[in-house]
Amino acid sequence: MRVLGIDPGTAITGWGVVESIDGVLNPVAFGCIRTTPKQSRAERLKQIYERLVEVIEEMEPDRMAIEKIFFNINVKTALSVGQARGVCLLAAAVTGVPAYEYNTSEVKNVITGYGRATKSEVATRVKELLRLDVIPRPDDITDALAIATTDLMTRAVDSLPCDQSRHEC
Amino acid sequence: MRVLGIDPGTAITGWGVVESIDGVLNPVAFGCIRTTPKQSRAERLKQIYERLVEVIEEMEPDRMAIEKIFFNINVKTALSVGQARGVCLLAAAVTGVPAYEYNTSEVKNVITGYGRATKSEVATRVKELLRLDVIPRPDDITDALAIATTDLMTRAVDSLPCDQSRHEC
Repeated sequence: MRVLGIDPGTAITGWGVVESIDGVLNPVAFGCIRTTPKQSRAERLKQIYERLVEVIEEMEPDRMAIEKIFFNINVKTALSVGQARGVCLLAAAVTGVPAYEYNTSEVKNVITGYGRATKSEVATRVKELLRLDVIPRPDDITDALAIATTDLMTRAVDSLPCDQSRHEC
Repeated sequence: MRVLGIDPGTAITGWGVVESIDGVLNPVAFGCIRTTPKQSRAERLKQIYERLVEVIEEMEPDRMAIEKIFFNINVKTALSVGQARGVCLLAAAVTGVPAYEYNTSEVKNVITGYGRATKSEVATRVKELLRLDVIPRPDDITDALAIATTDLMTRAVDSLPCDQSRHEC
């Protein structure tokens, strides 16, 4: 089972592919899509969309996992993240990959066992779980790996088939 | 000069094409894209995106005009509108149509001459300006026509070439 985690953003969209083989988690590939304010907003979204479709075609994930947006952000940020998130979900739909969402406290809880863990605690635990030499930077990549890992660990516990998940986007 | 106005939303995305010939405004076509909560969010965004690409290919607008999001909405709405707006901007970028944005007070000011006009006053004036028999429903369509009309009327005054507009998304 292979999951593509996504941390969407207009400037940086992090992505990370994690595979579970016989209950062992393996990082397959990760990276981020960077855009610049010199591009128009529409061009930035196009770049995110097109690169993500390439990643999906290359990596062939079974699912996409994406963060449910936290509500402690302001409206301007919500709009910007929403726009990037929209084209990421579109990339999933166009390539036929089902997308599932997890909220921040679920990610923290599954990864560290503690729903109020700090960002740094989550990153350190992701590094351990995936046996990485270093914590990937920028943070957006580690966040994407954390979401993919959450999806795999949650399903291992719940044994929910994809299409019965209450998390589907 | 032909402009496609868009009022993005996950449940209803309104669109309207307005043309200006020798300074006379003509409504060319308008409609809306409806999705249902029975679909996954990703599928809804895919439907909006694909239908909008069809509309653009059929109508061949020179520009897209879209509302700059008003900040008197809550974070949840901003996220949802942001997602729909993201796939609309992507449709513009993928088809090579430049997208421009206008905020609500600009639309009200250009259409009615009064930045605090009510929604109903704007709708009535759009009906008059475009010589429509009735105000199109749902509101999302009239809002889309108002934005397209604003773009055409603003440029008639400013005489700004497309690529020098300060409004580009």
